[in-house]
Amino acid sequence: MIHYQTEKETGKLWLCEKEFLPEYEQKTESVFAQCNGYLGVRAAHPFSLIEEQRGMFLCGAFHKAYEDEVTELVNCPDITWFQLEADGEKILPERASLTSFERKLDLFSGELVIRYVFELSGNRKIAVENRRFASMEQKNLFVQALKIHILAGNIRELKIKTGINGQVTNSGVSHFHKSVARVYEKEVMEIRSELEEGTVIEAVKCKLAAGLLLEKEFSLKRRSIYGTYVLKPDNGLAALEKITFVNQGENGITADKRKEALHAACATGYEVLFEKHQKRMESFWDTARIRVEGMSQEEEAAICFAQYHMIGMTPWHTNECSIAAKGLTGEGYKGHVFWDTEIFLFPMLLYLYPKEARRILEFRYLGLDGARKKAKDYGFQGAMFPWEAAKTGDEETPLYAALNIHTGKANKVWSGIKEYHVTADIAYAVEQYRQAANDWDFMEKCGYEIVFEAARFWVSCAKWDETRHQYGIFDVIGPDEYTEHVDNNAYTNYMAVYCVKTALNYAKTLKQKQPNIFSVLDWKLGIEKELGIWEEFVEKMYLATPGADGIIPQDDTFLSKPCMKNIAKYKTSQIKQAVLLDYSREEIVNMQVLKQADVVMLLNLFPHLFAEDIVKKNVLFYEGKTIHDSSLSYCAHAQACAAIGAMDLSWEFFQKCLVVDLDENPHDSTDGVHSASLGGIWNCLIFGFAGVRYENGVLYLNPHLPNRWKSMDFRIIIKGVQVHVLIEKKKITLACEPETSTPIQVEAKGRSYTLEKVLEIEG
Amino acid sequence: MIHYQTEKETGKLWLCEKEFLPEYEQKTESVFAQCNGYLGVRAAHPFSLIEEQRGMFLCGAFHKAYEDEVTELVNCPDITWFQLEADGEKILPERASLTSFERKLDLFSGELVIRYVFELSGNRKIAVENRRFASMEQKNLFVQALKIHILAGNIRELKIKTGINGQVTNSGVSHFHKSVARVYEKEVMEIRSELEEGTVIEAVKCKLAAGLLLEKEFSLKRRSIYGTYVLKPDNGLAALEKITFVNQGENGITADKRKEALHAACATGYEVLFEKHQKRMESFWDTARIRVEGMSQEEEAAICFAQYHMIGMTPWHTNECSIAAKGLTGEGYKGHVFWDTEIFLFPMLLYLYPKEARRILEFRYLGLDGARKKAKDYGFQGAMFPWEAAKTGDEETPLYAALNIHTGKANKVWSGIKEYHVTADIAYAVEQYRQAANDWDFMEKCGYEIVFEAARFWVSCAKWDETRHQYGIFDVIGPDEYTEHVDNNAYTNYMAVYCVKTALNYAKTLKQKQPNIFSVLDWKLGIEKELGIWEEFVEKMYLATPGADGIIPQDDTFLSKPCMKNIAKYKTSQIKQAVLLDYSREEIVNMQVLKQADVVMLLNLFPHLFAEDIVKKNVLFYEGKTIHDSSLSYCAHAQACAAIGAMDLSWEFFQKCLVVDLDENPHDSTDGVHSASLGGIWNCLIFGFAGVRYENGVLYLNPHLPNRWKSMDFRIIIKGVQVHVLIEKKKITLACEPETSTPIQVEAKGRSYTLEKVLEIEG
Repeated sequence: MIHYQTEKETGKLWLCEKEFLPEYEQKTESVFAQCNGYLGVRAAHPFSLIEEQRGMFLCGAFHKAYEDEVTELVNCPDITWFQLEADGEKILPERASLTSFERKLDLFSGELVIRYVFELSGNRKIAVENRRFASMEQKNLFVQALKIHILAGNIRELKIKTGINGQVTNSGVSHFHKSVARVYEKEVMEIRSELEEGTVIEAVKCKLAAGLLLEKEFSLKRRSIYGTYVLKPDNGLAALEKITFVNQGENGITADKRKEALHAACATGYEVLFEKHQKRMESFWDTARIRVEGMSQEEEAAICFAQYHMIGMTPWHTNECSIAAKGLTGEGYKGHVFWDTEIFLFPMLLYLYPKEARRILEFRYLGLDGARKKAKDYGFQGAMFPWEAAKTGDEETPLYAALNIHTGKANKVWSGIKEYHVTADIAYAVEQYRQAANDWDFMEKCGYEIVFEAARFWVSCAKWDETRHQYGIFDVIGPDEYTEHVDNNAYTNYMAVYCVKTALNYAKTLKQKQPNIFSVLDWKLGIEKELGIWEEFVEKMYLATPGADGIIPQDDTFLSKPCMKNIAKYKTSQIKQAVLLDYSREEIVNMQVLKQADVVMLLNLFPHLFAEDIVKKNVLFYEGKTIHDSSLSYCAHAQACAAIGAMDLSWEFFQKCLVVDLDENPHDSTDGVHSASLGGIWNCLIFGFAGVRYENGVLYLNPHLPNRWKSMDFRIIIKGVQVHVLIEKKKITLACEPETSTPIQVEAKGRSYTLEKVLEIEG
Repeated sequence: MIHYQTEKETGKLWLCEKEFLPEYEQKTESVFAQCNGYLGVRAAHPFSLIEEQRGMFLCGAFHKAYEDEVTELVNCPDITWFQLEADGEKILPERASLTSFERKLDLFSGELVIRYVFELSGNRKIAVENRRFASMEQKNLFVQALKIHILAGNIRELKIKTGINGQVTNSGVSHFHKSVARVYEKEVMEIRSELEEGTVIEAVKCKLAAGLLLEKEFSLKRRSIYGTYVLKPDNGLAALEKITFVNQGENGITADKRKEALHAACATGYEVLFEKHQKRMESFWDTARIRVEGMSQEEEAAICFAQYHMIGMTPWHTNECSIAAKGLTGEGYKGHVFWDTEIFLFPMLLYLYPKEARRILEFRYLGLDGARKKAKDYGFQGAMFPWEAAKTGDEETPLYAALNIHTGKANKVWSGIKEYHVTADIAYAVEQYRQAANDWDFMEKCGYEIVFEAARFWVSCAKWDETRHQYGIFDVIGPDEYTEHVDNNAYTNYMAVYCVKTALNYAKTLKQKQPNIFSVLDWKLGIEKELGIWEEFVEKMYLATPGADGIIPQDDTFLSKPCMKNIAKYKTSQIKQAVLLDYSREEIVNMQVLKQADVVMLLNLFPHLFAEDIVKKNVLFYEGKTIHDSSLSYCAHAQACAAIGAMDLSWEFFQKCLVVDLDENPHDSTDGVHSASLGGIWNCLIFGFAGVRYENGVLYLNPHLPNRWKSMDFRIIIKGVQVHVLIEKKKITLACEPETSTPIQVEAKGRSYTLEKVLEIEG
């Protein structure tokens, strides 16, 4: 169940909180967060609240505060706080009598609107409206408006205090070593907050939008600056607009230019700035919108919610940062980048915004040195990508987690050391990108090197298995984190072989057809002499195959472990990771129980790897062993079940993944939304329900629409061509927008077609 | 007017807040703060409040977070927060219907009691009582109790969450580079918070005091640890006691010893721990209590309040830290030590707790190296004591204040460079101590060296004035900070000469009578060769004398500056430093206007320096020029006016200084109480009203009781002898407790007496 209400009006789809619910505050701040790829601002009330966890995060603004801390996305000085006094009476939602309240986010435009009606002493009544958005048109701008309407009684003066508050921390850890506040021209407040790696500059100008300005005063507190504006309502109305210009470093934007930008923005005003922003948002939705006949408004909202946040967390402006596990919506996972990005979030970018998909991969390319260092540190070759990345390719996963509070012993964190698969996941994304975007320029500049260095890593970590007379990959963690230190994890081995095979093909082709490019790469990486070993790796790496029962062993020992008899209890538990309350981690590792999809992930990535019946068997078998304790699991299973036509199960998981962030549990998503799950919703829709697969130049379509849906209508971009896809129960219609000269091969319902302009496939 | 109410019951004097007033929260947290010299805890509500500014400070726990920040008293992980849920309903004073409230502090025992009555849904009603104290008996202990009484309706479960929260910062600046949490024996929570200079260890144990414990759980958050205790009320009652053991570094107290201490304290329980603490407090009051016949309960409370805080801020355990401008009650002035300590706070210690007075001076002795370095840095000799000290003798005053927000220019802070007088103030305190405590051991170990090094500083900063043919001290700031960069500030020159004269006397006497001691000091400091210059300094230093009109010029130019015509406006203004709104700092510096007592301070320290009529004239003259914009000013003038018998004026100032922290302005004292003013209250009482002066072996008594007072009864310790003083309108009674063999010379009402046992002086 979606906790939030939904409301539709022309061109708008609102996600609404209609009651004042402080226990949901931190969740709602994440869920309603406003991000434009450059900055992300949590949707805190303008007014102070005990539960508030204000946050503003800038893409790439990372810092490590102390040696024993981890590099994290810095919570930047806050700009959302307002203090309002009506004739000396402080207005706070918790204290004043609040007779009406709503906080709502338009998923299309990304505008947040918060409305209160307060009853004050002496039968006075005021309505307060706070609107805001993070501009997509000018990504340095965050625009807010505060409007006060006097509904009853007389109020002489409204005092509004707002500014920039650099006293915020990341849960008690401060990052800026210096903070310098200024007021320019008695109008523009500015704070420069310094990290070793750069400066965060926030400049604010407030504009009177209604009423009379009686007084204006600026005051300084430690690391913060405030302007106090005393307004006399005019015809019962007073309003202030607050424009914030945010910049990382000066980057050529001097104080004068910032002032100019603020003066210009103030002259333009909220409404026009918002229109411009909205136009940009509309152009995103023109490509991204998925229209489904037959779905409920709640489903539509949840799907748009996923895409809204994916649009907001994509760095539209740079390849110097990527997408974090919580986007720019909270402190969770320290703003780090995981495999989530390439496997769960990358597909939508690839098929809708291929330029941004490229940048995401370029980010990994820029991090190659770090990945090479990590490989070297662990005795491997090539590039071993970090399990958790911040701004570089350096591994940011701490070696030790917090001490066990009872024993005082440090728990080693194995994911940074043993979740090798991320290195194959990135190579897989590169190959997907090359195929669908046909971007050879990228391959020359970045792609080959990523794939080759990844391949070298895999080859170097293979070990000869005397029993099997094959290579194996030992002591790893696959996607499923309830199974640690296993040998020959199927997901890992298949992905590794795919990576090396891909690299080998490229190397051979280059050598033959583009020897100049090859020799530069060989000069740089020295790969030619290794091609033989790569070949041997591909030939002799052990790859698990289905047993007599059709089951692909997840790893060498999984199937021989005892089953968990009472698994149903944990599958249905409302408590997250309830299994850890009854079993020790060690016990869990030694049972047939999964936190999340593992072999199922493999089958999602390679739907044609096995025969249909084998895929089906394995998806159902492993689902039975999975507790879905990771937010990555529901979407992966929804997709996998759709692919095998297990539509009831698929629907069940789809419903669950739709509400990973939107459910009624106030403790979920408090430190940010679940990016990967949001990406997984798109993947389930397009790869699962619509059955899209683009592989080796062929667009496969194998739709399995949920029963209650009549049609799905969406766009994907293949080799630069936008294809409008309409899937109906008995008909698929494809149309190129505009018509293309390079036809696309299509395979659907067992037959092959060529798409040039429009293609209708019946039956 | 005292904002807080007062209440008396046997052995208790309560300062009370009877209404729930969030706008006073930060003030009340300071005013009701509980300190035992080792630790200080602000009196925040147990439950979260928007305006809260929780704080715990440990004497000497300083840290400089960043190069551009100042060394400051660290706000340590909080232990006062509680969360209470009654059958899942969160209890917060702002949200739940609060039908009754009081927060009150017993000034004698230092116990804080907070009581709420909440009306919950379904006609349920509960009373919550929170009691706490900082143990004087075992200074590492802070003891709290939370008691819930069900007044109406049925409540099955009370969930109490509390622990140690290391997410607190000093206004957004974090200090601990590492924080390690533990739970021992599933009972004791501990956080070790590391500074470069040491570790703050806080260990907590909770004890069930009423009700049934249904469940107990520990949870870890970043830099914090919490225990959750689910209680079933028993006969409508549930209670938890929380004992915290705080330590700076291990200091031989291992984890085992901490646990033992906590187990023992828990076994003892709140009531008995409190009794023991109270006994210690009583012994302080036995010496300190000032009884006045004729004063109001409010006056009594304000006087006890001053002494309560002075007892709380005194380091009873060490000479490694001193007393800060805000004691241990808040972040104000960064926890730094100013001249306030030696001139305003030291006298009460000297006459009531001479051992602690010695430690305060030892702290300065331990800081001699820093003071020597400062002297050297500024081209002087000897020791130039820091204007602001933290844990060492290093100067902590920043060279530049925050930038002017409008111009972006840094404002130079001159006090650290030019307020020379602190070096004389410390030497003055040493001499006062030697005379009243007769502690030659201290002189040998520390005192001589302080005085000699101070003297060398003064001699080195004197310059020959060709016009006057005398030495002068140029370009200084005296106590009055509205007059900067002046020459021959009277206070400074007289104090400097007193310092050098004292040093010279000691040197000569030592050389003659204790040549061994002298030669060691000479070997260390090389002073013998300088005695000639010292002599010249004393002889030839310019000292301002009263002019034809009897006025002692505050400095060379003061009397020639224009008067401020509208000074009355600022003297009566409710706004602090309102003069700065109308005049620039530069304009103020060039007018006859004072922030605070300057010549008047000199006359307080040397009441016999001039003839009575001259003193009188000067006190009144300079008071007329003083706006009293410093909290040090009212008490100094109350004392000075009492000394000259200007009792109406004295009474006016006395009333004002009584409420410096207790007045109705919610913005006063938010970052801590005004230590110096509290000390000044005692000084006004004893030196002003009672007219006590101990000088060169003679106890002078020249009382000027306020009209409405009938008698004053107090104790002072002279040369180890406790003298009980009773001052009545027409009679002074002195009694030694116990009888002494070394009689004290007394001079009162123009006659001399000898006090051995009891002395009654009539007339």
